[in-house]
Order: sequence, then C-alpha cells, then structure tokens
Amino acid sequence: VSEFYYQGVIDGMTELLEQLREVTGARGYLDGDSIGERHFHDLMGARRIRPQLLLRPGTTAELSRILALCHAANQPVAVQGGMTGLVSAAAPQQGEIAISMERMKQVIEIDPFTATITVEAGLPLQTLQETAAEHGLLFPLDLGSRGSCTIGGNLSTNAGGNRVIRYGMTRDLVLGLEVVLADGTVLEGLSKLRKNNTGYDLKQLFIGSEGTLGVITKAVLKLMPQPGTQDVAVCGVNGFEKVAELLLHAQKTLGGNLTGFEVIWRNTYELICQHATKVKAPLPVDYDFYVLIESMGSGGKGDRTGFEDMLGAALDLGLVSDAVLSNSAAERDALWQVRDAAAGVAAGIGFMHNYDISLNVSDMDYFGTEVEKRLRSHWPDAILGLFGHVGDGNLHIIIHVGEQTRALHQAIDDVIYGLIRELGGSVSAEHGIGLMKKSYLDYSRSAQEIQLMKTLKQALDPKGILSPGRIFD
Amino acid sequence: VSEFYYQGVIDGMTELLEQLREVTGARGYLDGDSIGERHFHDLMGARRIRPQLLLRPGTTAELSRILALCHAANQPVAVQGGMTGLVSAAAPQQGEIAISMERMKQVIEIDPFTATITVEAGLPLQTLQETAAEHGLLFPLDLGSRGSCTIGGNLSTNAGGNRVIRYGMTRDLVLGLEVVLADGTVLEGLSKLRKNNTGYDLKQLFIGSEGTLGVITKAVLKLMPQPGTQDVAVCGVNGFEKVAELLLHAQKTLGGNLTGFEVIWRNTYELICQHATKVKAPLPVDYDFYVLIESMGSGGKGDRTGFEDMLGAALDLGLVSDAVLSNSAAERDALWQVRDAAAGVAAGIGFMHNYDISLNVSDMDYFGTEVEKRLRSHWPDAILGLFGHVGDGNLHIIIHVGEQTRALHQAIDDVIYGLIRELGGSVSAEHGIGLMKKSYLDYSRSAQEIQLMKTLKQALDPKGILSPGRIFD
Repeated sequence: VSEFYYQGVIDGMTELLEQLREVTGARGYLDGDSIGERHFHDLMGARRIRPQLLLRPGTTAELSRILALCHAANQPVAVQGGMTGLVSAAAPQQGEIAISMERMKQVIEIDPFTATITVEAGLPLQTLQETAAEHGLLFPLDLGSRGSCTIGGNLSTNAGGNRVIRYGMTRDLVLGLEVVLADGTVLEGLSKLRKNNTGYDLKQLFIGSEGTLGVITKAVLKLMPQPGTQDVAVCGVNGFEKVAELLLHAQKTLGGNLTGFEVIWRNTYELICQHATKVKAPLPVDYDFYVLIESMGSGGKGDRTGFEDMLGAALDLGLVSDAVLSNSAAERDALWQVRDAAAGVAAGIGFMHNYDISLNVSDMDYFGTEVEKRLRSHWPDAILGLFGHVGDGNLHIIIHVGEQTRALHQAIDDVIYGLIRELGGSVSAEHGIGLMKKSYLDYSRSAQEIQLMKTLKQALDPKGILSPGRIFD
Repeated sequence: VSEFYYQGVIDGMTELLEQLREVTGARGYLDGDSIGERHFHDLMGARRIRPQLLLRPGTTAELSRILALCHAANQPVAVQGGMTGLVSAAAPQQGEIAISMERMKQVIEIDPFTATITVEAGLPLQTLQETAAEHGLLFPLDLGSRGSCTIGGNLSTNAGGNRVIRYGMTRDLVLGLEVVLADGTVLEGLSKLRKNNTGYDLKQLFIGSEGTLGVITKAVLKLMPQPGTQDVAVCGVNGFEKVAELLLHAQKTLGGNLTGFEVIWRNTYELICQHATKVKAPLPVDYDFYVLIESMGSGGKGDRTGFEDMLGAALDLGLVSDAVLSNSAAERDALWQVRDAAAGVAAGIGFMHNYDISLNVSDMDYFGTEVEKRLRSHWPDAILGLFGHVGDGNLHIIIHVGEQTRALHQAIDDVIYGLIRELGGSVSAEHGIGLMKKSYLDYSRSAQEIQLMKTLKQALDPKGILSPGRIFD
C-alpha cells in the first residue's frame, strides 16, 4: 500500500469532517478537548475512549444527512443517550464518531384523548414523567437513572424497571417511532393508533436492538391514568413454595392493581440490616424470604380494603408468617427503602458485581441454593445476596469475593451464567448485551437465532456503520 | 423454450411430490378431490382456488423438511389455520401448495407459576381458552370466530377482538415462538421469560406478518387471573365530545378494570332497533351515541360499588343522559347482544360491506359526519352504520348501497380509505392486508416503510416461497 493510499484516506476523512461540520454547524460539532469526558464511557465505565468527533444533531433532517455522509464514507458511529447503560453499548470504540441525541429533547405533543405523548429521543425520562403528570397522566416506565437516562436510550435498550409486572417493558409502551436508517433514510412511523395491522410492525426492530439497526429520533408513547391509591406491605415468608403461592394469590386477588412483587432472599436481608444503617428493618431476621407487595388502585374506597383482604387471607392461608402494612406515604417510602437498599449494601462491604438475570419462577429456589453452592466452591468466604422483581422472573445477584472481586469478573460470570444456561434463563433481563455480555449471548439464544440477527443486521446496515460489534460480531 | 424444458419441469414436480409424500405419509398428503373445499378460500371467500396439494404436517420436523424441499424446488406455499381470515391471506393462489396446521394442535404445557401456556399453532382458540379456564386462568384473546380460528392464525394476523383495551392485541400476549423459516431452518424461541434483553426480539417479525416471513409452529402465551366480577352498562350520550370525556372518566375511575368501551352511532342503533328483532333495545332512539362500558374486577366487594360510582359521577357530570346497568348475568348478555347485533343487521337489509379501520379518537366525530356526507354524494340512499371499539381507536362501518353493493366494493373502498388516508388512520385495524387490501397499503404506510418491508422479505425469504404476493408485491 503506497503513501498515496494513506494520503487518500486522510483527504477523505478531512472532506468528511468538513461536510459534517457544514451539516451540524459549530454548536453540533465538537472535537479534541472540547468533547466532555462523559461521552467516553457509560455508567459501568468498563471502557474510556475519546471519540474522534462528537456530533449533536438538532433535527431529524440533520441526523439523516450525518448518517448519509458516514454511510458513504464507511465511517462507524456510536449513538449516545444519557450514558447510563451498563454493557458498553453507547461508549465509543476506537475510531468511531459519537452522535449524541442530547439536543433533540422536545415534547412535541401530549394528547389526552389518545392518551399519548410524542417526544424527541433525547428527552430525559424524568422530564417525560413530569410532563405526563402535569396533564394528570402517568408514564409508567421508571428506573433509578430517571434523571439522566433518555427515552431514546430506554427505547434502544428496551428498559424495564420498577413497574414491569403491571405496565410491561418499554416495548409495551410504544405506539410509533421515527427512525433514521444507516444510509440516512428517514422512516416515519409516528402513529398514535393502538390497532394497526397494515403490514410488518417495523418499530419492533429498533426497540431493544441497542442502536445497531437504526437511530430512533422520535417516539409516540402510551400514557395511563394516574393511580389514586398506593398500598405497600412487607411480608416474612418461609419456604420458596410459599413465595410462589403468594405471587399467585396476589395476582388473583389484586388483579390489574398489582404493581410490585419484590423478593429479598434472607442473605440479602441480613446484609441490609448490617450495612444499610439508615434503613429501619420492618421485620426481624427470622424468615427465609421478605416479600414487598404493592398495589395501586384508581382511588375507589375498595382499594385499601381489597389490599387488607389480600393480606389477611395470605396470613390465614399460612402463606405469610408476619407482615407490616404501610399506613402513610412516609411508611410506604420506608418499606420501599428496604428493597432499594439491596443494591446499596456494597458501600459497607467493598466493590460488588451486580448481575441482572431472569429465569422461570419455578427454577428460582433451586437457582438460589445452587448458585451459592457453586460460588462458595470457588470463593468460600464470598458475600452474596439475591433479590429481585420475582413477579417478572427477574433476579439480581450481588457478590463480593474479596479484594480481587473486580479482576475476577469473568470467573464469576462463568459460574453464574453457566447455571443460567443450564436452566434456560436469560443472561440479561434488562441491561442488554452491548460489548460486555457478547460472549454469553449464545447461553440464552440459539445458533439459528444469532444467525437470523446477523441476517437482519446485514439487510439493514450492510456496511456495518451503526454501533458495530455490539450484541454480536 | 423446448419441450425438454417442460418435461424437466414436470419431472421436477413429480420428484418433489414424491419427496413430500415420503415426509408426511398418507395422512398428511392430500391431492385432487380429496382436498376439502374449506381449503380453497377464507371466510371472506373472495377467491376459491383448489391448491394443487394439501400437506398436513404432524410435527415441526416434518414442516421443516417440507419447507426445505419446497425451497429447493422454488415451490410457493400458502399456510393455513382455521380459514376465518377476511383478506385472502391463507387462501391459496394458483400453483401454490397449501400447508394446513390442523394436525398440530397439542397443548404442550400449562405452567401456573409463570402463568403461561405452551401450545402448537393449530390449536383452536376456544380450546386454548377452555384449557386455561380449567386451570383457573384466563387467555384473554377473544373474537367471534373462536371456535374455528387457530392460535397460529391469530398470531400471524396479530388478531385483536373484544378485550384489547385491557389486555392488548395478540402480540401483547406472546412470550415465545417456535418458527420454521423459508428454507426449513427451525428457530427455537419457546422462552417463558417476561424479561429477556438478549439481542433482537425476533418473534416480533413473525407476529402479524401473515405468513410471509416464516411459519409459526408453537407459542408460549401469557395467561391472566380469571376476573371475579363483570359489570356492564349501556349509556345514552349526546355529542361526541362527551363520548371522549366519558372514555377518559372511565379510564380514570376504573383503572386496570376497564375491559370494554364500545360505541354505537345513532345510525347503527336505529338499524339494530329496526332489523335485529331478537334484541331488546335498552334505551330509546333519543341519543347521538350509545356507549357500552364493561368492567371486570378481581372479585372484591369494591368492584360493584366502584362501577356504580363511576356511572353516578358520569350522570352528575352530565356526560351521560341516561344509563342502564346490568343486575345479572342474563342482563349483561342482553346488553352485549345490542353491541353484537350491529354486525348482524345485514340479514334484514341485504349484503353489507363491513370495514375495519382505526383512527385517533379526536378525529372520530369528523370522520363519522364526513364519511356519511361523501358516501351519500355517490349513493344518496345508502344505508350505513358506524360502531366500534372506540377505546382502542377502532371503528367498523357497515354499508349497503343497493343491489350493486358487492360490485361497487372498490368504489366504496376508495371513498372510505381516501378519508382514512387524509386523517392518518389505518386501512386495517385488525384484519390485516393479505391480497384484498394490498392496493391500499400505501394509504397507511410510507414508501420508506414499504421498502423496508420488502428488504425484510428479501432477507428472510429470498426465493419468495412463503405466501407470495400477500401484503405487497
């Protein structure tokens, strides 16, 4: 390869950069030291790479022209929302141009009659929630990073969170999307219609595909009525078979009002009592499991009695050994703090890995016992805890194996994901695959499925410029 | 082209038929007069073509080998469920081999802890509903053809029906699918997991794509708790703005319990009173709209009072002028019969076309007035009625324009779909596109969207052997 070739590459890049700057203007074009460090990495922070360029389009038309230029130049891009991901999907790789959606954050319309909100992708989740609330409506997606994460990121990762048992994942809240394809083609699909069987439901391709098939620019989302009442109880339960029966009982008696069924294994509850000093333990460390049940009703008189009846029947049936029921908003918050403290006990212990897996409820008891046995066979003094959204089949595992915890990431992965594979579970319930979990994708998906994913990638992004190397190679 | 060519084609076909017969055995292989006439056409019956062969695979492995052979031989196929479709998707075209899923109708597993049922595609919907009910659970999808239609057909058309406002379309009830691709590859995806963000959600491709991208062989479906109470009211309402406000009021006060919000325009109510002689009209012909509201609760004491409170408040607010509330199961059924009679008034009038469209609730009042005006400008004596699942944005229009009603199908289509196009609505809310609505696909979808549909078809079925010509050319 001659020096003319390299000169050609350099000239080509110079020309591309000039064209991109023309599209975005100075406000949308940052390079060198002017690129903020938060664009180098996601919340997990496994990689910190400065993108060669940061583009901040202000409109769909600008993004379309950016992608058309990058496509023509075979230039890979990494699309960024709030950078709160955990699997290195939005973090740039060497040589990629970062495209941040942060300037596209308008609320375009809120329509009470279709109960929809139409927004740009860069809108922070919390702003979206607050806008809906101002109109007396609820946007039910909720997760810890609500202040920083963007709805575009929630869509591209199919985020889950706290109320999935009642309202579903992000995918279930989407009516329409506007998407820019790899070559700059704009796919207009901002429909508010709840029923629309006119050909393929194309929006499904872009939800949860982590930016590899297209860039979501706008969305029409479903809103719900604001619930009028909220009741919370924490129950002490002995034996997992009673946890499973309690779930069926709560679903049967609370029906559509059940919004939370969170289970804390005793090992986690002990860690909370020891290390989360600000949390007041509602029950003694006497039970195998601690179950938080939440119900939200529309505000009728029957909501509270219905919740009390559910709990009374659970005690009578012997499903629950003891229970604490909230009598005020402050008490509700205090009970939720117990559940939320599970993720925070690391502060008193040292660095802990936090796993996000899902499996069938009927396999959870075995999983809890077996994963502890296998982990202890490698690290006898491991500190670990299980907890999670059992109503959705979603568990979290926190683990500390001593000073080497960070370095032993892959060895711990192998134990946990190995067991998940045996049980037909998912190595990623909520967080996605990105770069971080790529080597475990085939633990949860078949060779034929992964081949079809590659066929779709090839069909939609034949040059592979959109977030290359994420999910699969 | 020489006669050797034709001889080659005949030899090739003879060989294919022999191979197919080897795969299926005599029980799964029917030709000539042994093919029942019900395999020639769907419920709409616009086309009646005898398939050159009817194959009835008994297992996924058999279907996989059938498709591999047809793929190698460039032989197009039409996959059939219960043949209750309305848009000529499953009806065979000239030269196609029909593949009926009717022998694959096993219930594979019902799992109360994940609240799922795993079934084969040929299972009739009603059998699925009854199996769930035997286990104290509800499969909420419900439509008039429940006794004949199959779950595979429901999945491939993304069927809607009576309870979409609460439980969603068929798509919303699916956790996992097993699918055979055009070349015979089996895609195993029978996951019961409610959260599984491991790469692309491939099952979405096959739901609602009318058999053009793959053949669904098995499904894992969500089940719900059986509701304990059911309350129904029919309300007389003057002015569409009050209908829209009543919808918001019902959603707000009934929350997750609202299962039905059906609206009958006065023109339809008059037709029902005149022609549906078996139906007892619950209210006089005095109001602009007749709204049926249904609520299903989990069985608590508050369910009935909550419903009565909702209705009382609606009367106090002036949203409702008069209302009839059910006090027994018989009265509930009688109120639903009024709504169901809308589709049956043709018996007293003559052939009526029945349209299935959707649009935003805020456009419905204008649509009702304008569509009548435009239709009458062509056919001054047209008999027409509007009614539908307004809570889902879904309307039906029945129309009779005299003896020529059948022959004038396309002229009536042009008026109705033309207005739908202007309003950004959908030319097919529930029924799909098939062959019948193909020429109107671009009324509801953009050129870029249709191009992407074709890209997907090309990627998944490059030889075009799966239901060719359906949805688009």
